[in-house]
Amino acid sequence: MTDLVATYYFRPKEGVDPKWAANAIAEEQTTGTWTSISTGTKYMQYLDGRVESLEKEGSGYICEVSYPADIFETGNIPQYLSVVAGNLFGLSKIAAVRLLDIDIPKLLVPFHGPRFGIEGIREIIGTTQSGRPHVGTIIKPKVGLNPKDTAEVAYQAAIGGVDLIKDDETLTNQPFCLMEDRIPRVMERLDQVADDTGRTVLYAVNISTSGDRIAERAEQAVELGANMVMVDAIVCGLDAVRVVAEDTRNRVPIHVHRTMHGAITRNREHGIAMRPYCRFIRMLGGDQLHTGTVSGKMDHDANELIKDNMALTETFYGLKDTFPVASGGLHPGGVWSELQTLGTDLVLQAGGGIHGHPRGTAAGAMAMRQAVDAFMEDIPLEVYAQTHEELQIALATWGRS
Amino acid sequence: MTDLVATYYFRPKEGVDPKWAANAIAEEQTTGTWTSISTGTKYMQYLDGRVESLEKEGSGYICEVSYPADIFETGNIPQYLSVVAGNLFGLSKIAAVRLLDIDIPKLLVPFHGPRFGIEGIREIIGTTQSGRPHVGTIIKPKVGLNPKDTAEVAYQAAIGGVDLIKDDETLTNQPFCLMEDRIPRVMERLDQVADDTGRTVLYAVNISTSGDRIAERAEQAVELGANMVMVDAIVCGLDAVRVVAEDTRNRVPIHVHRTMHGAITRNREHGIAMRPYCRFIRMLGGDQLHTGTVSGKMDHDANELIKDNMALTETFYGLKDTFPVASGGLHPGGVWSELQTLGTDLVLQAGGGIHGHPRGTAAGAMAMRQAVDAFMEDIPLEVYAQTHEELQIALATWGRS
Repeated sequence: MTDLVATYYFRPKEGVDPKWAANAIAEEQTTGTWTSISTGTKYMQYLDGRVESLEKEGSGYICEVSYPADIFETGNIPQYLSVVAGNLFGLSKIAAVRLLDIDIPKLLVPFHGPRFGIEGIREIIGTTQSGRPHVGTIIKPKVGLNPKDTAEVAYQAAIGGVDLIKDDETLTNQPFCLMEDRIPRVMERLDQVADDTGRTVLYAVNISTSGDRIAERAEQAVELGANMVMVDAIVCGLDAVRVVAEDTRNRVPIHVHRTMHGAITRNREHGIAMRPYCRFIRMLGGDQLHTGTVSGKMDHDANELIKDNMALTETFYGLKDTFPVASGGLHPGGVWSELQTLGTDLVLQAGGGIHGHPRGTAAGAMAMRQAVDAFMEDIPLEVYAQTHEELQIALATWGRS
Repeated sequence: MTDLVATYYFRPKEGVDPKWAANAIAEEQTTGTWTSISTGTKYMQYLDGRVESLEKEGSGYICEVSYPADIFETGNIPQYLSVVAGNLFGLSKIAAVRLLDIDIPKLLVPFHGPRFGIEGIREIIGTTQSGRPHVGTIIKPKVGLNPKDTAEVAYQAAIGGVDLIKDDETLTNQPFCLMEDRIPRVMERLDQVADDTGRTVLYAVNISTSGDRIAERAEQAVELGANMVMVDAIVCGLDAVRVVAEDTRNRVPIHVHRTMHGAITRNREHGIAMRPYCRFIRMLGGDQLHTGTVSGKMDHDANELIKDNMALTETFYGLKDTFPVASGGLHPGGVWSELQTLGTDLVLQAGGGIHGHPRGTAAGAMAMRQAVDAFMEDIPLEVYAQTHEELQIALATWGRS
């Protein structure tokens, strides 16, 4: 295969022939325009997009469009996007169009993918044998804590049992919590946890900034002691992930967050589904990626989510797997459904669902881990809760979902 | 004013109190989360978001939310986006939410804005006195022409009278039309036009690539002779515009294209309107920006478009104006409505509407310029066409719109 095949859902406006509409997409994104022109040449026909299939789906249609590999500039992600997800969204004769998936030929994947992946992160945490899901937390409140209090929250979560702590997406390097103060303080407390318990806890420092500065910021974070970095791929531009992944000075896994994605992914009829983002982030080198929860506060579609996570772990030109992260309104009462639906190669990330525990952050982290243990031992949550107080309190507070 | 004020449209799900929903946005984007938590502190309350107003609008509501300047990392655009356009799009109790506009305090604008702006570009082209709109074209077919044929199309358009020629968004630096071959060939032909007619024609070379490589590519383009560069801001990441604008080696205006924006801007109830993008691109240094047409092939809302263009030209902390570009299915028959609605500080860009002219590209360019002249002399298009054959043919081909 040397074509890139993109799958779209679309709904033509009334009276517009769906075949015409599918062709309009294929042409707008390759060699065509809205009127016949005088400047075309025969030698360029090998670059034409082609509609490979067209089927009715709900109130619209699903079509597959193939784009010849030659139309792409190898390795230029913004250019890839301009072909598969460019002007087509504005075509006035098509009421709505959504990019559902992409199938990329190997020659357009000149990337090394995740450096760590699921296996590499499991090795760091020590869960290669058990295969249990990881538990993570977001430091809350999202912003405003000073470095000392940030470190204290991190410590409480770590001592309670989380494997991963991350900055929230709006915390980067503001004066009230500078990286140079925050990272050493957090890492000092996490080292203390390592000394006391033998457990390594990852701290994903949010290095999100523009593509020309992010490599330097990653390096700074690692020099300050960070053992993971976080990149918010949509606001930074997807390729920021690659910039960090390819920087040989960076020797820590990359946690990829996706704030703003809801503006693009949420509408079922228009925009871009999460699946293409999963494929892009994996090839660009994201070691972890947020894909959503089945039980949380954020809008979701369980079937899409299952397939999104599969896109992170199925065979893909020998690239390592990306660890899917379930996050957003998660709490111990939701753990069972997450694991049952999404499997145990999963990071269960709870912010409010840990720090909102009536007994505090450490108890909240314990409750999350207890919920995970219950699932792994196949003991119903309520039964397990009878002998695990933190879980019991969590279930009494938030119920099951 | 030291707060950033964001205006949102939203539609809460049935049974959800709109006040609750507006507060949920303000909290999710600042110091809050979905449940009460134990780790908050009093000293951070100065970072709380506040709902400043809430009014019924259509089937939803419009609210203004103020974010304290301190919550932002000055100059970090991805971080700005994570606050004003972050997780809020996914909140499951809000059916739809759209960021309509942002009002940014001066201290969050540490950018120099456009280096040329409307005035600077008018000086290059020589239209400071006349104040006429500029006419531009996109080289068509979008991709596939070899450098020689690309230069020939550019020449025909230039000799016909366009002020600006741009690459299409999917053409960057593919082997079939490498920059190092394309730019010198195009510029050679444009120099010929300058020798013959005394007119300078801009060639916006599409340098779109990731943030870590784009400055180098801009430099390469300029060294090869380009007198303008084009950045596709959404697929590159908005901040790519700043990277090029701030690079002191870059001494040419920046033409900003916005492919993929339809995935985000098109839905009237959900996503991000064009207005915030206008403000961002202007402060980041875009000298020209595509905002849409009132008569073309792309979906649009004339009232929004008028205000979008205003955002590019109204007083804004002393920054220069950004030249709005009307593009997408434009042809001579649409020129009058564009200028009447959007004013004459406008770049009228036609691709198919020039190259699709039955007598070819040069005639198409002449027809566009004739339509502009008719408007500037206040002579009805049809009357002007009686003595201008190219315009007459264009109107006969595409009609008026």
